[in-house]
Amino acid sequence: MKPASFERPVFYFSPSAYPASPRQTVLWTFFAVYVKTFFMRIPDNLKYDDKGLIPAVIQDWKTGEVLMVAYMNAESVRRTVETGLTWFWSRSRQKFWQKGETSGHVQRVKDVLYDCDQDTLLVKVDQTGPACHTGARSCFFRSFSGAGEEKKS
Amino acid sequence: MKPASFERPVFYFSPSAYPASPRQTVLWTFFAVYVKTFFMRIPDNLKYDDKGLIPAVIQDWKTGEVLMVAYMNAESVRRTVETGLTWFWSRSRQKFWQKGETSGHVQRVKDVLYDCDQDTLLVKVDQTGPACHTGARSCFFRSFSGAGEEKKS
Repeated sequence: MKPASFERPVFYFSPSAYPASPRQTVLWTFFAVYVKTFFMRIPDNLKYDDKGLIPAVIQDWKTGEVLMVAYMNAESVRRTVETGLTWFWSRSRQKFWQKGETSGHVQRVKDVLYDCDQDTLLVKVDQTGPACHTGARSCFFRSFSGAGEEKKS
Repeated sequence: MKPASFERPVFYFSPSAYPASPRQTVLWTFFAVYVKTFFMRIPDNLKYDDKGLIPAVIQDWKTGEVLMVAYMNAESVRRTVETGLTWFWSRSRQKFWQKGETSGHVQRVKDVLYDCDQDTLLVKVDQTGPACHTGARSCFFRSFSGAGEEKKS
């Protein structure tokens, strides 16, 4: 028997015990991602290179599209986790930058993963507008095999 | 009028002029990818870092999953394009390595993209077996927000 939602006990939250409607599933998924980002914790074994940087691959959390690759130092990793927006270290300008600071094309962090060597980050984001400064959705719009600019949208 | 396939003229190959069956579409897509890889050309404006390396993000060409990140130099980019298998430069062992050389978990190259700064590669591959040496499908199996090993499959 399915109880009314206001009296639903905690153990009914298990997906197998409580088959949810598509709308409920979507809401629970969003809620779970929100809760997960709230409890993010930076692992203490991350390996930074000799310049104190770690490359971060930025991926669209829904489509899986790789949007860009940029570099973070320990402080920008901390800011990224704390603010839920992506912060990087600019190697050319030698300063912090927050993606979308001026353009408004911010990236809301949904999850941060790190690889088996702990020397690369994979940041899953909700991208507002295009990720590339050229106006392309992704910075990877040119291919070795294609005419080049074709993928720019 | 749709002509019999043995007398189909070349201009019927246009997808809009010639609506194909799902099976034909799949076959044409595979053929197009094959032809594209055959005509791959390394752009001459790729930017390597002070150690002569360029990071390469390896992505599953079908699922979009990011499998690993490794480094290539000019010679391993050449070998990758020439053999259709991924070649890297090992920074720790200071030698070339071909992914799957010993394990058999090779990566067949489907496309190579490069970003707006020409300093990062995105290689779309058909991955045989797991990509990670730990046996996980992807090297990114641990998360800042998760219990850690949960994503390893």
